Amino acid sequence: MARIKAAFIQTRPVFGETGKNVEDALKRIDALDADVAVLPELFSTGYQFRSKKEAAALAEDARMGYVSDRLAEIAADRKMHIAAGMAERVGRKVYNSSILVGPRGFIAVYRKAHLFWDEKKIFDKGDTPFEVHDAGGARVGMMICFDWLFPEAARTLALKGADIILHPSNLVLPHCPQAMITRCLENRVFAVTANRVGTEERIQGRRLRFIGQSQIIAPDGRILCRAGSVRAEAKAVEIDVSEARKKKITPLNDIFRDRRRDMYEL
Amino acid sequence: MARIKAAFIQTRPVFGETGKNVEDALKRIDALDADVAVLPELFSTGYQFRSKKEAAALAEDARMGYVSDRLAEIAADRKMHIAAGMAERVGRKVYNSSILVGPRGFIAVYRKAHLFWDEKKIFDKGDTPFEVHDAGGARVGMMICFDWLFPEAARTLALKGADIILHPSNLVLPHCPQAMITRCLENRVFAVTANRVGTEERIQGRRLRFIGQSQIIAPDGRILCRAGSVRAEAKAVEIDVSEARKKKITPLNDIFRDRRRDMYEL
Repeated sequence: MARIKAAFIQTRPVFGETGKNVEDALKRIDALDADVAVLPELFSTGYQFRSKKEAAALAEDARMGYVSDRLAEIAADRKMHIAAGMAERVGRKVYNSSILVGPRGFIAVYRKAHLFWDEKKIFDKGDTPFEVHDAGGARVGMMICFDWLFPEAARTLALKGADIILHPSNLVLPHCPQAMITRCLENRVFAVTANRVGTEERIQGRRLRFIGQSQIIAPDGRILCRAGSVRAEAKAVEIDVSEARKKKITPLNDIFRDRRRDMYEL
Repeated sequence: MARIKAAFIQTRPVFGETGKNVEDALKRIDALDADVAVLPELFSTGYQFRSKKEAAALAEDARMGYVSDRLAEIAADRKMHIAAGMAERVGRKVYNSSILVGPRGFIAVYRKAHLFWDEKKIFDKGDTPFEVHDAGGARVGMMICFDWLFPEAARTLALKGADIILHPSNLVLPHCPQAMITRCLENRVFAVTANRVGTEERIQGRRLRFIGQSQIIAPDGRILCRAGSVRAEAKAVEIDVSEARKKKITPLNDIFRDRRRDMYEL
């Protein structure tokens, strides 16, 4: 096992229309023939909740809800893995989460560690560790959107052995697509960022325009594919996972062994 | 104090011609009227040493050598600070170092932590901590070239309070100029990367072409100025140092307080 087909599904969700959003995403996944696919952050609900209460009403259990079930069905059917952002309810808590499902069902949930702006009013702070999971031979780790700004997130996943960072996003600022190239270079990993397109203005004066530009980046910083900023679109590329296991970038430099932990104060 | 003039001096050193290289750099500094100027890595000697012995022969004391003295003179004369890469000899050891001098003389030396490729055969591994120094009201920290690949270097400097990262470089690969934008965004600091131009092939079959593209980046990722890839050139821009002290990027996000140290495994 070395070569797999990785994909992003760039969507345009309609706020609150979970059924439509999920079924639309499933159709796009079904058309792709990917081994690992990534959906955007909060792909099933949309982004701009007016209150924690509203988010709780639309949130689901990560393991047993409609979103999880439907994704697990197609993952089993297509023998693939899917990472997807969703609002997760756990008792009274609501998380901005990403689930990973595979051919045998639910695998893991990651709860966003670094919440952006008003998300802090809506969601509880993530309490799951950055973890790596097997996905058909590839080792994958999840982080969500704004986590990109914190180098420690991708670094932790890479040091734990991630080959591919699965990165559901709802980006509104311009910098992330370029910065993810740095994340891949500094960790020699692949990254699949799945962003959404379209706009939301459920809170007056807070119009959000999502920038699309979903992308797949290689460990050497190459942009393997990148979507536009306007349309929903899905793209898959074959990647050689073993590229992410070569941390030796010159005969004398292994980027992990070269780390000077004795000099870092973090 | 908030606004200062920061500059890079992009040079084309001639290998082994320390006198010429230093005097040429001094002329360029003198023409600039900068408060803080950065010279490239190993600006006084050139880069491609054939052996540790050769490097030792060209290396100098960081505090009392010709390079340090001459830079301190102009720093005193112009009431400015200068960071400059040089080969430093300490007993039997030779470091790829950067010194910081100011109006009152030598301030500090930083010895490159992450050595690239054949540098490991020439230089000893840096043993100085990442530190922050006052430079006329701005807090500055030094790192050298390949240190850029390790997010922990800039992060450590920023967490210690650096406003500006002074980054003497001898870049041959294409990624650093773009990656330094990420370093500035993730830490909300300025960075001045001073690179060289020209080629060296003192070891047969190891022709090095340095990429120039020296640059000054703002905490919000703006490229304030960037040099070309071919010519020696110096550029200065006025920057508002206080921009680097605002770590709050939204009313609810302070990028340092938002760090989830409980979740990082570094």
